[in-house]
Amino acid sequence: MSKTFPTVASLHTAYAHDLSPKEMIANVYRRIAEVNDPGIFITLIPQDAAVAAAGALPAFDPVTYPLWGVPFAVKDNIDVAGMPTTAACPEFAYLAASTAFAVQKLLDAGALLIGKTNLDQFANGLVGIRTPYPAPKNSFNTDYVPGGSSSGSAVAVAHGLVTFALGTDTAGSGRIPAGLNNIVGLKPSLGSVSSSGVIPTCRTLDTISVFAGTVADATRAFQVMAAFDPKDAYSRALPVPPPSGLPPGMRVGIPDGKGRRFGGDTLSEAAFDATLADLSSVTGNTMPTPVDMTALFDVAHLLDSGPWVAERLHAIGNMIAAKPETLHPTMRKIIECAKSLSAVDTFAGLYRLGELRRITDAIWSHVDVLIVPTYPRPRKVDELMTDPTGPNGELATYTSFVNLLDLCALAIPGRFRSDGLPSGVTLIAPRGRDGLLAALGERLHSVSLNGIGASTDKVPPPSDSSSIAAPGEIELVVVGAHLSGMPLNHELTRRGARFLRAEPTTKDYKLFALPGGPPYRPGLMRVPDGTGAQIATEVWALSAEGLGSFITGVPAPLGIGTTRLADGTSAKGFIVEAEGIVGAKDISEFGGWRNYIASLSTS
Amino acid sequence: MSKTFPTVASLHTAYAHDLSPKEMIANVYRRIAEVNDPGIFITLIPQDAAVAAAGALPAFDPVTYPLWGVPFAVKDNIDVAGMPTTAACPEFAYLAASTAFAVQKLLDAGALLIGKTNLDQFANGLVGIRTPYPAPKNSFNTDYVPGGSSSGSAVAVAHGLVTFALGTDTAGSGRIPAGLNNIVGLKPSLGSVSSSGVIPTCRTLDTISVFAGTVADATRAFQVMAAFDPKDAYSRALPVPPPSGLPPGMRVGIPDGKGRRFGGDTLSEAAFDATLADLSSVTGNTMPTPVDMTALFDVAHLLDSGPWVAERLHAIGNMIAAKPETLHPTMRKIIECAKSLSAVDTFAGLYRLGELRRITDAIWSHVDVLIVPTYPRPRKVDELMTDPTGPNGELATYTSFVNLLDLCALAIPGRFRSDGLPSGVTLIAPRGRDGLLAALGERLHSVSLNGIGASTDKVPPPSDSSSIAAPGEIELVVVGAHLSGMPLNHELTRRGARFLRAEPTTKDYKLFALPGGPPYRPGLMRVPDGTGAQIATEVWALSAEGLGSFITGVPAPLGIGTTRLADGTSAKGFIVEAEGIVGAKDISEFGGWRNYIASLSTS
Repeated sequence: MSKTFPTVASLHTAYAHDLSPKEMIANVYRRIAEVNDPGIFITLIPQDAAVAAAGALPAFDPVTYPLWGVPFAVKDNIDVAGMPTTAACPEFAYLAASTAFAVQKLLDAGALLIGKTNLDQFANGLVGIRTPYPAPKNSFNTDYVPGGSSSGSAVAVAHGLVTFALGTDTAGSGRIPAGLNNIVGLKPSLGSVSSSGVIPTCRTLDTISVFAGTVADATRAFQVMAAFDPKDAYSRALPVPPPSGLPPGMRVGIPDGKGRRFGGDTLSEAAFDATLADLSSVTGNTMPTPVDMTALFDVAHLLDSGPWVAERLHAIGNMIAAKPETLHPTMRKIIECAKSLSAVDTFAGLYRLGELRRITDAIWSHVDVLIVPTYPRPRKVDELMTDPTGPNGELATYTSFVNLLDLCALAIPGRFRSDGLPSGVTLIAPRGRDGLLAALGERLHSVSLNGIGASTDKVPPPSDSSSIAAPGEIELVVVGAHLSGMPLNHELTRRGARFLRAEPTTKDYKLFALPGGPPYRPGLMRVPDGTGAQIATEVWALSAEGLGSFITGVPAPLGIGTTRLADGTSAKGFIVEAEGIVGAKDISEFGGWRNYIASLSTS
Repeated sequence: MSKTFPTVASLHTAYAHDLSPKEMIANVYRRIAEVNDPGIFITLIPQDAAVAAAGALPAFDPVTYPLWGVPFAVKDNIDVAGMPTTAACPEFAYLAASTAFAVQKLLDAGALLIGKTNLDQFANGLVGIRTPYPAPKNSFNTDYVPGGSSSGSAVAVAHGLVTFALGTDTAGSGRIPAGLNNIVGLKPSLGSVSSSGVIPTCRTLDTISVFAGTVADATRAFQVMAAFDPKDAYSRALPVPPPSGLPPGMRVGIPDGKGRRFGGDTLSEAAFDATLADLSSVTGNTMPTPVDMTALFDVAHLLDSGPWVAERLHAIGNMIAAKPETLHPTMRKIIECAKSLSAVDTFAGLYRLGELRRITDAIWSHVDVLIVPTYPRPRKVDELMTDPTGPNGELATYTSFVNLLDLCALAIPGRFRSDGLPSGVTLIAPRGRDGLLAALGERLHSVSLNGIGASTDKVPPPSDSSSIAAPGEIELVVVGAHLSGMPLNHELTRRGARFLRAEPTTKDYKLFALPGGPPYRPGLMRVPDGTGAQIATEVWALSAEGLGSFITGVPAPLGIGTTRLADGTSAKGFIVEAEGIVGAKDISEFGGWRNYIASLSTS
């Protein structure tokens, strides 16, 4: 059988030629039958109903409807009106009266729902088999767990049954099954996607997540869904920029020696190192920075040992009281522990988290993105039969600190293990930097030359449409201490600026090293046409508000004027007052500030 | 006896003439003896030690040391090295090894510590008399409670024993005693002042607060103290702008009909309305907006009924376990309730707060500042003897929702009641808007024509700062076509910019008439110090967003840099690239663009 993968781009190309949504639906149900894994869907939409929904789409218009005709699935702890929500607990099931805020956004964008997927009961677990239904099977090797809790959604995507699927993520449920099935798992910044209509697990830590074959598709669904929802108390108005360009000199962190945890599995370790070896072709030759993982692991430990398990008890406490026998036994055991936790314990946990967060904050002053294994090693279904919690806890090693620390994450496939199992890496950054993760993730994923999920279709090259400002953004040309990796770059990034492109000026400039500092700064000065040099710059995009507040921190003799670039464009950019360069050293010969700074350290 | 009040301004004026710090100290201790309230200080610094500290001050320099020679007191739940910290629980007392972060900032700014003040034990209470020491007495009528928990600090300031004093505020401890003693109580945005070296009450809700005779003095101390402290996990880098001008058209909210709670006390109600009547002379004739207080009162109720009391238990749990008899009985009763609260209760409370916060957020979309009574009515000491908790709870009506909602607040004296007791109002705004509260509070306080505290000195008029930018605004210096009445002025006004002042540059500029136009434009260029001319400018204020979008319309060779003004300030302003003025006409002799344009039409 042909194992193709229906990316949004391939579907839209086909729709533009001769594919009809009805044929697409027929393909989906044929694939479902071929794969024949009864554990994936808890509720599959009848084929004729799916065909009817496809027939009700407006005319093909992928600009107005960015997910037009794109099949997707939804984890069964998220409401869809008229369908049961089970959370993998049949006795708990109810018929949803309305559709979750985020799902409605997808439907409004033209996406076609295929079904509701299986999960670790009430989204408690990372193995994907804690369900009273038949468990979904790992799409590569059925001896291994599919990963959870969003197992059904991940396996559905891995087999190309749907283009993308929603999961939820509290401690890693949106990432671990992605890593175990060779697909992408996008775990948004908390609050950027509404949780209205989602059964809570730990309400302060939950988010909807997206599984897809490619970073581009996951990002597209995320951008469609992300919106402030006044009805969700934990919704936040966060920036959801398009995938950004990759800032040159981006600082990547990796676990240091003692932070490398693979449970003794040398195949996983080798796969992780092979993926890291791909990094240099993506980010240039900058060496990744080893990061001390101690405080991050401490936070992960806190999620297990601390008060947050009481959130799970809060979510289903009435259920436990009324019908304890309906709960999965492993789940019941874990959650019952929460009964002995006190309010004092809870605040003690929150204080400890505050202290650990202060420590981990320091990581982000010298690292833009942290890359970790998605999990230490794959675990077998049999192992879980004898020890239902140990392997589950090990899987959480690199995921469960993320939401407690208000970070965003993107799990992408890494290099395959030598035994043919997939491996995965996860990119992590502070809240709101989802776009940066997508930029790096898309590039790192494409160099792997992997197939998408369990298909034979190769990962496409990254889209390169992101190097100009989006509507509402202003381009700013920087030439000195604000360049990526330079001491003042944070003045851009903390205002949500995103890197667009590196581009030299026209030959009408001179660059001067200004007196004073640190931080040391250059002055870029216009000279008569053709009498100057080309000077290296970076173009960044930021909001009007960001630019306005950025300017307040620009000292004399510098200012923001207009800079002419070699590509024929011009943009707002740094200028310098003539009086300010009296006696300053002309460093135009270096062609840019980065070269000049490098010359200082080598001379 | 002369009942004067030592404001910072009056002290600094006296120091500049003939007062010595030693004489000032002698005055303080003479006043302390005159007032003769043994309940105010738990530890008074010996007079000779205070004199020695005064003698060790550097030379008088109120610019470098904004609190030079200013006497202050510190609530006795804040550490000062070498002094006992008791928290009004003698059995708990310890000798502090180091000085609290915020207190050290005050000492470094030249302030002189006089003593540590009495409080409701462990800062639990709003009456000020829950202490095993003699209780401080209300500075106006000893039948009434002084208010707490920071009773000693407030009474010390009311009597003019010190210029300002530190309190702490969790549920109103920094505001209620201000209202009951006719002084100012500044409750900063949470996290702007470090809590390092403060005994926690509810760690997630605590802040140091400032009592002073005037808003200007409270603000000065706040600005000295406020700084990010990496050692305090709850410290935040928040803006601490100077008091601003009062934005025209500021929107003031007041409790609606059913939000008016005075416990049936018509004198308190009349005093509140008299204070509101003063508002129009301060803000113009804009009518205040009635605000539905329901959700705010719900949050206040949540502080009592919810999990936060467990934070108090966490703070002193070991003490209760070891020596329960040492606690004040009222305090012990309240705190012991926390023992029965579970982790599930705690998260339920946090969720409920999240929901209520979302509701109350809506207030701030149509109101800039909410003005409420500081407390419903003053309560008598005798009443507390028979009911130790009821009146305490009533006092919290308008204060205890503030910290849970991450708001800042400023309590100022209102019009006096007809029985001679003070009344108070509290100004409330979202986090980070402390400067706006100060601007309004200073003006509203001055129109009351009150004395300061219990003194006969009148509240001084506000410093005239309306011609500077308000918080969130940025000053922009314009010199050409953007001047008022000129062709491009609309580029400012349609972005909501407001005119602040006309002010010439320093004598370091030349003005050039640039080629091109219309619109005709000048270029303002920095030249070596003293070799140029003063050029007329206008300073406008606009938002960061306004400035950012304004800049996109500024063409080369112009840009926005920094302009130095004759009044010694500098601000963002137009600059010009040197290349742009080649061949342009030097019109500096006209002293400004307006004169130059006028000369064209008359010639």
